[in-house]
Amino acid sequence: MINPIAIENVRPRTPDGFPAKAVTGQVVTVSADIFRDGHDLLAAQLAWRPKGSKMWQTAPMSELPNHRWEAAFSAADVGLHEFVVRAWTDAYATWRKGALLKHQAGQDVAVEMEEGALLVEAASARAKAKDRAPFEQAAEMLRNKYLPVENRLEAAEVPEVLAVLRATPAKKDLSISSSMPLWVDRPRALFSSWYELFPRSNGGFAGTTKRLAALAEMGFDVIYLPPIHPIGVTDRKGKNNTTTPGPDDVGSPWAIGSAAGGHTAIDPGLGTFEEFDALVEEAHALGMEISLDYALQCSPDHPWVTDHPEWFHRRPDGSIKFAENPPKKYQDIYPINFWPDKDEDRDALWRECRDVLEFWIERGVKFFRVDNPHTKPLAFWAWVIRKIQSKHPDVLFLAEAFTHPKMMARLAEVGFSQSYTYFTWRTAKQELAEYALEVAQGPASDYMRPNFWPNT
Amino acid sequence: MINPIAIENVRPRTPDGFPAKAVTGQVVTVSADIFRDGHDLLAAQLAWRPKGSKMWQTAPMSELPNHRWEAAFSAADVGLHEFVVRAWTDAYATWRKGALLKHQAGQDVAVEMEEGALLVEAASARAKAKDRAPFEQAAEMLRNKYLPVENRLEAAEVPEVLAVLRATPAKKDLSISSSMPLWVDRPRALFSSWYELFPRSNGGFAGTTKRLAALAEMGFDVIYLPPIHPIGVTDRKGKNNTTTPGPDDVGSPWAIGSAAGGHTAIDPGLGTFEEFDALVEEAHALGMEISLDYALQCSPDHPWVTDHPEWFHRRPDGSIKFAENPPKKYQDIYPINFWPDKDEDRDALWRECRDVLEFWIERGVKFFRVDNPHTKPLAFWAWVIRKIQSKHPDVLFLAEAFTHPKMMARLAEVGFSQSYTYFTWRTAKQELAEYALEVAQGPASDYMRPNFWPNT
Repeated sequence: MINPIAIENVRPRTPDGFPAKAVTGQVVTVSADIFRDGHDLLAAQLAWRPKGSKMWQTAPMSELPNHRWEAAFSAADVGLHEFVVRAWTDAYATWRKGALLKHQAGQDVAVEMEEGALLVEAASARAKAKDRAPFEQAAEMLRNKYLPVENRLEAAEVPEVLAVLRATPAKKDLSISSSMPLWVDRPRALFSSWYELFPRSNGGFAGTTKRLAALAEMGFDVIYLPPIHPIGVTDRKGKNNTTTPGPDDVGSPWAIGSAAGGHTAIDPGLGTFEEFDALVEEAHALGMEISLDYALQCSPDHPWVTDHPEWFHRRPDGSIKFAENPPKKYQDIYPINFWPDKDEDRDALWRECRDVLEFWIERGVKFFRVDNPHTKPLAFWAWVIRKIQSKHPDVLFLAEAFTHPKMMARLAEVGFSQSYTYFTWRTAKQELAEYALEVAQGPASDYMRPNFWPNT
Repeated sequence: MINPIAIENVRPRTPDGFPAKAVTGQVVTVSADIFRDGHDLLAAQLAWRPKGSKMWQTAPMSELPNHRWEAAFSAADVGLHEFVVRAWTDAYATWRKGALLKHQAGQDVAVEMEEGALLVEAASARAKAKDRAPFEQAAEMLRNKYLPVENRLEAAEVPEVLAVLRATPAKKDLSISSSMPLWVDRPRALFSSWYELFPRSNGGFAGTTKRLAALAEMGFDVIYLPPIHPIGVTDRKGKNNTTTPGPDDVGSPWAIGSAAGGHTAIDPGLGTFEEFDALVEEAHALGMEISLDYALQCSPDHPWVTDHPEWFHRRPDGSIKFAENPPKKYQDIYPINFWPDKDEDRDALWRECRDVLEFWIERGVKFFRVDNPHTKPLAFWAWVIRKIQSKHPDVLFLAEAFTHPKMMARLAEVGFSQSYTYFTWRTAKQELAEYALEVAQGPASDYMRPNFWPNT
């Protein structure tokens, strides 16, 4: 059985049932096509709650042109929410409109007045006993054939009577949309100003800490650090991408891992954990935060390479496959094989990747800039973001994805809080206007938050 | 766990999971957005079958620009079908592209050739023992380091080897869309030429039978008769919608039912069941068919009014509510209350309405022109059309719906085979072009079949 009333095309939503997105305090406009057979007038209501709460909050929906209805709400807390759209036939409004039209056309409306009185009495039965006086009075007036019809119709237009008349659907008529999931983030998921710096160029963590006040002064609120982990030595890259580094070449920070550790270690050249903690603390004190790079790849010297060779692609000659985009080679980086042959190996790998996030969340990092997420499985992102956010709903993920539009939208759908955009490729007025409309109002605007910063 | 490969936006489909539509022999183009992480090449396949069949038929999908893929099929039989889109990583094509690029860039590809040989050997294991010779030969050539690389790459390009290499997904990588339902009708659901006539003006059924050959000659294939049932006498309408009919006024054929019977009876003035059967038979003999009007409403004299007063709206003065659109009154017609208070009354009513269709289907009528479906519940149409078509998949329903576009699309979605359109309201070139594009390619074109005939 489908709903007696059609409730279609509810927004916000994602194409495949993942949560749409909002931030705390944001006005979320919910809209839907609502209509039924015949000419009766309808009423509709938006209901929402944090997922798992027993109490719904509600707001009446307003009718727009072309059978579209809408209402707005805002969520106070981060985390998963749900909303539904409810619709029913407004028996009172339908009755009143018909009775008035007939009276104005000079028709006898004695039976209509009795029908109205019965509607009011039925509503009275749903009010508390102590509140029933205005209902009884209204029903009596509607039946008073010695008064002009206009006055009798006026008599039911009492706010406390109307409130009950209009808000109470007949059970057999009440129609309810599917439960629509909405993930609510903290406000920086919607808007934040990022400053990227290499701690190595700023006197390590200690020197970087001293720069924070000036960055806060400029209005930045997120300080993003490229990978801060130990850098591999095997096949380290030198100047201009050569494979012959000099003794002072530090290599690419994205070639993560050495004998000093992997994704949960700090490059000794940048400072200590105590200095890192002090950096995070100072950022918080200034109303800012530190974002780390989450780059899931390894140098040949990463501990995972020896401890878990099954997490990498092995070639017929026994070597591990390094990153390449033929004919380009990145010998200093091993991509991870997210789909090892054995399911238990995959489970262990994915959990380890999750634990890297947990490690830094524990140290106060709540915003991750994710390196090239479009080169790792969508299934992994759907899993790891849900795992982390269900425990830490204030953690945010920025997708460093410069790839095709459908992939960018899909990464946002499966959970990324923010995404890069093609903004920097648009230069003409019309291109900018079209693109701004697309990101502000297009279908993906329900869940994709384009970040307009021009840095990669 | 979501699919390793994203398969999105599959068409044809309806917004809420009802079947999309096709007719037998029609070329149905299935398309989807298909992509995965990284740069590996993909393969995709369309699979379809009549619902309930154990065997899938398949066709390879081709890649279009912007990650869209498509393939086409056509169904031989009417009834419910299902299709899925399958996608996997094309390991062979990915390998070959990379090996060639590296070789062309002057890199050593000895390990790549061994990888290729292993891919071919893995494919060989999936071929029948007697078919393995070309695989062994290809693997041997790939490993033959005395030959130029181009020749070795060429050696695997043998049709029977390629067919196995390309068609066999790795199990952990195979991604499958949801099952998509498709309802397949006979061809007249897509295109038919209708001729409407009143048997009363043509000498009843016997006279109408004589006109059929001339109508067939003109190219018509559906002869539509307004209601042929007994007409009520209570509050019968006279000329020009007056309520004072003369003795020769027959009333509106849509005021269905009298002492002579209701929706399963024939107005005695039109002929006998035998004459009706002869009319249907002659139409079939001429390659045409008879369509009846399915108008779910009653005159005050319809047998249902006395047998089932609970199927109508009763007013406080004890009268049954007649049809009205205030201040307009249609005293000769009682609308049906499709939602009686008791569920068992509703079940009995809906079944009776279904049985009316069964009655005429039994007499050879397979096409119903449904009167004002937008004034009866969508839930009823979803139920009754599914009930009828699951037993008689060749029965078709035309929605006589001149109402707002969302309702027209929704009626098509819940099951109507054909619908009216706004064609006759479009007159300018641009209006016509836009509308033709909308009905031919817009989202509703997957399930709504607009009938361009200008008659209501």
